[in-house]
Parts: sequence; structure tokens; C-alpha cells
Amino acid sequence: MVSSLRLPSLTSLFSSPSILRTPPLLCRPHHHHHKLSFPPPLPLTAAFSSQTTSASTTENPKKQTNQDQKVITPRSHDFNAWYLDIIANAELADYGPVRGTMVIRPYGYAIWEAIQDYLNVKFKETGHSNMYFPQFIPFSFIEKEASHVEGFSPELALVTIGGGKELEEKLVVRPTSETIVNHMFTQWIHSYRDLPLMVNQWANVTRWEMRTKPFVRTLEFLWQEGHTAHANPEEAEKEALQMIDVYTKFAYEHAAIPVIAGRKSKAETFAGADRTYTIEAMMGDRKALQAGTSHNLGQNFSRAFGTQFMDENGERQHVWQTSWAVSTRFVGGIIMTHGDDSGLMLPPKVAPIQVVIVPIWKKEDEKTGVLNAASSVKKVLQSAGIKVKLDDTDQRTPGWKFNFWEMKGVPLRIEIGPRDVLSASVVISRRDVPGKQGKVFGISMEPSILEAYVKDKLDEIQSSLLGRATSFRDSNIVDVSSYDELKAAITIGKWARGPWSASDADEQRVKEETGATIRCFPFEQPQGTKTCLMTGSPAEEVAIFAKSY
Amino acid sequence: MVSSLRLPSLTSLFSSPSILRTPPLLCRPHHHHHKLSFPPPLPLTAAFSSQTTSASTTENPKKQTNQDQKVITPRSHDFNAWYLDIIANAELADYGPVRGTMVIRPYGYAIWEAIQDYLNVKFKETGHSNMYFPQFIPFSFIEKEASHVEGFSPELALVTIGGGKELEEKLVVRPTSETIVNHMFTQWIHSYRDLPLMVNQWANVTRWEMRTKPFVRTLEFLWQEGHTAHANPEEAEKEALQMIDVYTKFAYEHAAIPVIAGRKSKAETFAGADRTYTIEAMMGDRKALQAGTSHNLGQNFSRAFGTQFMDENGERQHVWQTSWAVSTRFVGGIIMTHGDDSGLMLPPKVAPIQVVIVPIWKKEDEKTGVLNAASSVKKVLQSAGIKVKLDDTDQRTPGWKFNFWEMKGVPLRIEIGPRDVLSASVVISRRDVPGKQGKVFGISMEPSILEAYVKDKLDEIQSSLLGRATSFRDSNIVDVSSYDELKAAITIGKWARGPWSASDADEQRVKEETGATIRCFPFEQPQGTKTCLMTGSPAEEVAIFAKSY
Repeated sequence: MVSSLRLPSLTSLFSSPSILRTPPLLCRPHHHHHKLSFPPPLPLTAAFSSQTTSASTTENPKKQTNQDQKVITPRSHDFNAWYLDIIANAELADYGPVRGTMVIRPYGYAIWEAIQDYLNVKFKETGHSNMYFPQFIPFSFIEKEASHVEGFSPELALVTIGGGKELEEKLVVRPTSETIVNHMFTQWIHSYRDLPLMVNQWANVTRWEMRTKPFVRTLEFLWQEGHTAHANPEEAEKEALQMIDVYTKFAYEHAAIPVIAGRKSKAETFAGADRTYTIEAMMGDRKALQAGTSHNLGQNFSRAFGTQFMDENGERQHVWQTSWAVSTRFVGGIIMTHGDDSGLMLPPKVAPIQVVIVPIWKKEDEKTGVLNAASSVKKVLQSAGIKVKLDDTDQRTPGWKFNFWEMKGVPLRIEIGPRDVLSASVVISRRDVPGKQGKVFGISMEPSILEAYVKDKLDEIQSSLLGRATSFRDSNIVDVSSYDELKAAITIGKWARGPWSASDADEQRVKEETGATIRCFPFEQPQGTKTCLMTGSPAEEVAIFAKSY
Repeated sequence: MVSSLRLPSLTSLFSSPSILRTPPLLCRPHHHHHKLSFPPPLPLTAAFSSQTTSASTTENPKKQTNQDQKVITPRSHDFNAWYLDIIANAELADYGPVRGTMVIRPYGYAIWEAIQDYLNVKFKETGHSNMYFPQFIPFSFIEKEASHVEGFSPELALVTIGGGKELEEKLVVRPTSETIVNHMFTQWIHSYRDLPLMVNQWANVTRWEMRTKPFVRTLEFLWQEGHTAHANPEEAEKEALQMIDVYTKFAYEHAAIPVIAGRKSKAETFAGADRTYTIEAMMGDRKALQAGTSHNLGQNFSRAFGTQFMDENGERQHVWQTSWAVSTRFVGGIIMTHGDDSGLMLPPKVAPIQVVIVPIWKKEDEKTGVLNAASSVKKVLQSAGIKVKLDDTDQRTPGWKFNFWEMKGVPLRIEIGPRDVLSASVVISRRDVPGKQGKVFGISMEPSILEAYVKDKLDEIQSSLLGRATSFRDSNIVDVSSYDELKAAITIGKWARGPWSASDADEQRVKEETGATIRCFPFEQPQGTKTCLMTGSPAEEVAIFAKSY
């Protein structure tokens, strides 16, 4: 089923040794670039650079050949190696010197900025203000909410020395901020007039994870955490649902990820919450990724921290709260949803570069004309608000550039050669449709025509990516009505959806026996009466089971 | 001299006990609002709320009176108390639970966002990409650059426990990132083609300071830190100068702070830099605030970390580097430059709210008309890109609102009452010109007229604030030609500017004897031959001496 999503593999083209020494190809490879191939000849290099490697390369410092183009491990061979290759080769991230930490490189950070730009506007539109809470939390705070301490204490980083002295109280480097938020809310909230209090912060958080993976699970990561306090439980519930809806819309409309939104089981609920809502995404290997959560905290933290207000009747009550977060993990979700054997494939709306222009010339006297045309095309697109990059270095061949920008996942490539200059047109290739099929010749350079064409194509790619991911998802969810069917589905790597009203112990048993957990009880429920797949008792809802990151 | 900057004090009006019980005034106070006054009657409350205070107020939960309006300690009485009062009352920040930490509240954070929005664009325009480095740095890194460890080791916070276990190597919570940046640069930089490498990160940093003050010096603060690597020293120097210039322009054009840009003395140079450039701002109490720095790091870190590249001739060289930073301290600089006895005074370009609309009605049947007019005025301004707030609560009197928004430093106030609705006009008051003088009646509500008028006034306020701060600064810098003159100037609280070519020991002596340090050798130097004020020897430059934060 995986293969139904993937594109014809290009890597087979890289394996012929006869091609490896092909001289730099300077003519335009219009009709056959995938056949000729511009070879990335080094052996597959393992993902990240070593943490202590000092540069000791001895390459020719002058003009480079194509000798340094790296190959991505095919996705179908080893999904994890493929993922790490992409992260290294597309320069999305690198390992930090401390185990499990990650340096987010500019190209990866730009994807995070696209996520931030969208969400930041939505948070403000829905009435939240940004602010900033300190990251050091007195250890005693963490202990105040019983299930919170249980959930987080195993993965805390503790500051014990400050300014050369042993501290009287150990400080927790925030794993999340509910405790310190409530400490402050208690001082700010007095009456119902102070409610709702709706804030958000963009911050780093630290969780001492044992098994880490770039973007997906790192010792330190970046996120936003929203925190709100309300005068009644209905408002808090409405807020928690509103925010999971903001995340869902972002996932579908910008990241082109068809997440399934729903409610977590009790066992999977956030430590300290009454209810956790989640968006669950299916990655290319069909594992689930929890991509965002929104918690209805009820009065758990307000009781632990005495966060009270005087209501309209003059009575003191504890506030009802929510918290919700999306993190840099989402970048990992984008990579693992859309990437293919050639590398990254970015939805236009989150792509740091939406269009790359590759100028092509054979003779030196063609160069000026081609570069002039390329740079005027760049200006046209730029002033139309399109994120465009002109790759005009002459240290790389056009073929190298094609592969490189494909690997970086740029949605559209524009090629401009001497013949195009003469005909005042360009050639445009789609990242998501390889080869001839995705290539169109003779698009006019006339600004209004070109701009309209490019915008239209970007929209098309955006929906095409969502459509493809949706088909993939739907073809990999199996409706099950018994535990045996569930086990069968999980065994072949799919998600299982079936009615569930069994106990926490049964849920634990499924986890132990299959490796799958309840990802959520989806908001979208099938009609009709349901019978629990495990117990045969009546069930109100179906749950989705899957292995997950 | 301070008084020349300050506005006529309003606080004297708050002291008459007979006024304290004035009933809420609902008629429009057009001609006399500062005479009548809308009394803030509670005793002066000490700045920040206590860290353990639980809400125990027993105020009437229904309609509020003016009884809760707080007064700011007059600036001339106690500058520090005034500063803390503003921070508390304007809700800019609050103390965190850990000593020396600060919670940045939405109104204060919005000022920081205005700073970020401007600088982030400038950084990208000048070729820098955002990225993110981990905040945990192996302790051994800090020790690699000799002067760096000396400068920073006394103020480090150390993580010694992670995931319940004692760590093998202590981790430093970043006080700044040069060391980890170089560790990574060493892996990424191989040839001259990889240079220049120009990045920036927005991050939190931790320095275990003993004497803290909100925004100015806190244990944890937010900043941006730029880091660049270049193939030759000239480029690095050019970059360091370019970035101090970006900061200077921001200070003048947006924050309306007439900073003095220049070079730090050797003694005041950043731990690990060859040269430090700085912008120095004069606060309302005439103390200097270092508001931004840009360092030419030379090859100090590249040698310590082995960050080398192959140059165009095939020879290995260490890179030349810069780093530069502006932090949330800048928010403190804005407060202490422009505030007056009535509270905060924000330059329009960094104000979270540029215009506040206060609707005024006496009778219930006037209310609808007034509120409709107010909300259409709001829409007009909003769609013109002006940050506008309509304060339409009926739980406060107009007088209370006038004082409140003045205290919050909103540049322009628009009043709309029943008579204004009839005449389709509004009344506009400037924050920076109190009383009648700053109040204009009968500005048409006609969108194009109103929009033009408001924009024009905001520009006027922006330049007026800069002009006023510049006069204040210039009238408080004394040219000195001897140490006695320097001492005299410092004693009366001014800055001293004089030729300097004396030793580090002499510089230290000035510090010990007067409390003043060399803030910088300003870029703008007077013409003519110079004689060192301390030694009488020839001097190439004048230095500026001042007491500082």
C-alpha cells in the first residue's frame, strides 16, 4: 500500500557506475533529464555529521564538480535512514553536542517560521496575547499536582548550581509551564472580570528523553504553549475544542497533512488534564505522529495552586483551564508525510522556497542573456509575493541543481536556457510529478501570465499533496470488529479503527501485545450501534489504534 | 536638568483628599479634565505583587468605582520606585517565583514583539537566516576560550541532573552561544564557498546575576544573537559595524532613543572579542544603559574551536567572526527614556496600542449613538493599519480610563461624546503634551480626514519624543578636559566627554573614584588635536564617561 503513494523511484538511475563520471552537463536536459541523470556519486553517507569531526576534506577549492552530491537512502529500504538522510542532506537540522539535542538549521527553521507565522495570527484572532514565563520552575511546584509530577518527574533536567553556588531548591528547566502559569494566574486573577485570561508563549522546553530523533523527539524542542483560564467549565471546553480546530485547519490547509482529530483515551490523557484532544497524522511508514494537543485541564491545576476568582454572585471559585501546544515535531511530520525517494517534498504554503530558477547556458556568450532573463523572472515572482530563489552559481551544473532542489523539496522549478530567452518563455517542472509528466514547456515570461501560471500550479501542488496523503491515509485504515482483526491490521502496518468501550487494562493489553495504542476517539464517528471489539459490550465510539512515534 | 525633560506633574492633583470621593464623572471633561481629575485614591502600592500573595480582595464584584486606580511614585522623588511602579501598574512584567526571574506580561511582550518585527526584517535584508542552537552547552566548551570563561563562569546556571541521574558532564544553560556556535560552524564550514555564514537566533539566555531589575538585568532574558563567520578580517569588521548601525537606526527611528554609538574600551570589551561596538542610551535619571552590542570576535573562537576553511589558494585559515545582540533590556530603555510622572510614554512605532478611543455618555439613551460612532472610528483607523483600542467598558468612568491609558503610555487618545456624534467630530489628546495644549477639538470623523490627521499626529509624536530625548541627552553631556572636570560632571549626575589615551589602570581608577565607566569612544568625534584629560598626553579620541545600569 505504501507504494501507491510513492513516486517512481529515481534512485535506480543513480546506481549505474558508467554515469558517475559523466562530465558536467551544461546543455539543457529538457526532454530527458531524468534519463541522463546528474549523478551524485559518493557512497551513501550516514545521516548526520559526527559530533566531533573537524573539517579535513581536501577537495579542490576551485570549481566544483558534481562529485559531492549525496544520495538519499530509498524510503522503502529503510524509512528511518531515509528520514535522517533528508534531514542531513537538505540541511534541516544537525545534532547538538549534548546527546539528544538538535541544532535547527536555517532551512528547517524557515519551515518552523512558516508554522509560527500562521499560528501566531490565528492565536491573536482568537483572542490570545503572547507573553513569556521564566523557564526555571521551583522543584516544589512540579510536585503540587499529583498526576503532573508522576508524568513529568522521570524526564526533568534540574539546575542545582547557580552563580557558583549549590541552590537551596533545585530548579526544573520547564518541561511544560502549567505549574508556573498557575502560580502567576493566582496573583493576577481576582474577579470574574479578569476572565477569560488567554495567553500563549513561544518557547523552548526540555524533556530528558532517552530515545531521541530529530524534530520528532529531542531533549530540547521549540513549541508554543497556550494557557487559558475561564469562569466556567463550558467555556474551557469550548476553548480546548477551538484550539484543536485551529491546529486541524493548519494541518489540512497549510501542511497538507490530513490529520485525524479526536479525544485521547484516559490512559493517553496529558498528566494533569481532564481531557486531551489531539491531531494524529499518518506518516509515510504508516506510524502515527501526535502532531498537536489541546487539554481541558478542568480545575486540577487551579485547585493545586489555589487559582480562584470571585464570581458574579460574590462567591469564590476555582478557575477552569486549558493548555494546548504544537512543537517543532510538526516539521518532522511534514517531512515524513510528503517526502519521497528523491528527498523532501514541501507543501507550497510551508516551503521556504516555493520556486527555484535554474538558468542554463552552454557558451559564455549565452550567459548574460540567460541570467538577465532569469533575474527578471525572479523579480516578477518576488513582487507577486512568491518565495523564489535564483540559483545562478556557475560552480554547479544544471543537473546537480535539479537534483539538489528536488532533494530540498522545492515545489516548482523554472528552467531558462538560451532558446527560452529567444522565445520569451520558460520551462516549469513540478516536484510532485517527476519526469516529463510534470514538465511544461513554453510558459510565457509575460509577467501577468507567468505569475498566474505559477500561483495556479502552487495551488494545484498544495491540493495534490493533501489529496495524495488523504488517499494514502484512507487506504491504510482498516475497520475492525474484533481483537483478531485489530491484530491483523496492526501486523501488516495499518491503522485499526473499531468500536471500543473496554477497560484501561484491556487498552494496556493491546499495547503490550500489538505495540499499538489508542491514538484517539475521532470526532468523526460512524453512524449506527456499535459493539466493543474487545468485550462485545455496547460501545459509544470507535477508537483508532496504531503504532506511533 | 532632568526637569527640562519632564512634563508638568499631574500627581499634585491627586493629593487633595476632598477629590478622592468625587463620584464617577460621566460627563465629558473636555475643557478641564486635568483640573477636575479622576482620582486614584489608594495609597501608593509597592511595585510588584508579592510572590506568594493569594488573591484575598473583597471588592464588590459588580460595577467598579475608581477606588482601585493606582498612583505612580513621581519620577523625581524616586526614579527606581517610579520605574517599578510603571512596570507593575502598566502590567509590563511581574516577578517570577525564582529570584531574579521575570514574567513578561502581554503589554510588555507586545513592545518586545515590535522590536522583534523590525529587527527580524532588517536581519534578513542584510543576509542573515534565523536558526536555533540548543541551550545546553557542555561545560568543557565554556573553558576553551580563555577570556570567555573568565567573563562568564561566575554567572553560570548548571544542569547536573537529567532524567533522574547525575550527569557525567555538567551542562551550562547558555549565557550566550559563541562556544556552541563555533562547535557547529567547525562542522559546517569547509571552504571559502561556505562563507560568509550569517545566522541569527531568537532565544532565552541565563546569567546568574546578583542584583536584578526587571528588563534591565534579569536572571533569564530574551534576546537575539547574531553569529557570522567570514573569510577575512575586513568583512568581519564591516559586518560588526553594519549591525551596530542597524541597532542605531532602530533606536533613533523606532524607539526614539538618541543612542550614542561607539567602541568599547578594552576593559569593557566582550569576553572573547577583539572589539566591541555599543549603543549607549541616556535614561531619565541620566544613567547610561548599554542597549545593544556588536562584537568583532576576530579569530579568538575559531582558534579555540578549530573553525577553519580552505581559502581560494588552497590554504587552511581560521575564520573571522562577529556576534551581536539586542535583548529585552531594550524595553527597559524605552520606559526609562520616555516615561514621566503620569507613567509610561511610548513612541508610536513601538506602542502596542497607538490610539485609544474613550466613548463618553451621560444618559443611557446617548450610549448607543456614542458607541456606534466610536466603533466606526475604530474600524476606520484599524483598516488604515493603526493599532487602535476601543475602551467601551461601562465599569470604569471616562476619567479613570484617561488616567489608565495615559499611564499605559498610549500616544493618542480619541474622545467621543454625544455632542461629537452630533457634529460628526472627535476630540484628540496627545500623551506627550498634557492638558489643553495637547488637546484638539472638532476633528472630523470623515475617514480620510481622520486617518490623515491621526497618522500625522503619530509621526509628530514620534519625532517629538526623539527631539525631546535628544535635547535632554545633549544638555546632560559635559565636555571635560581634566579629571577634576570629569569628577565634577559625574558628581552632578551628568555624562563627561573628554579626550582619553590613558591606561587601563587609570580607567579603573576613574571607576573606583567616581563610579563612572567609559561607555564608549563615540564614532562621532570632535575635530582638532586632543590632550588626554587624565595624563595630558596626546589623545586620538574622546571617550564618554557615565554611571550606568
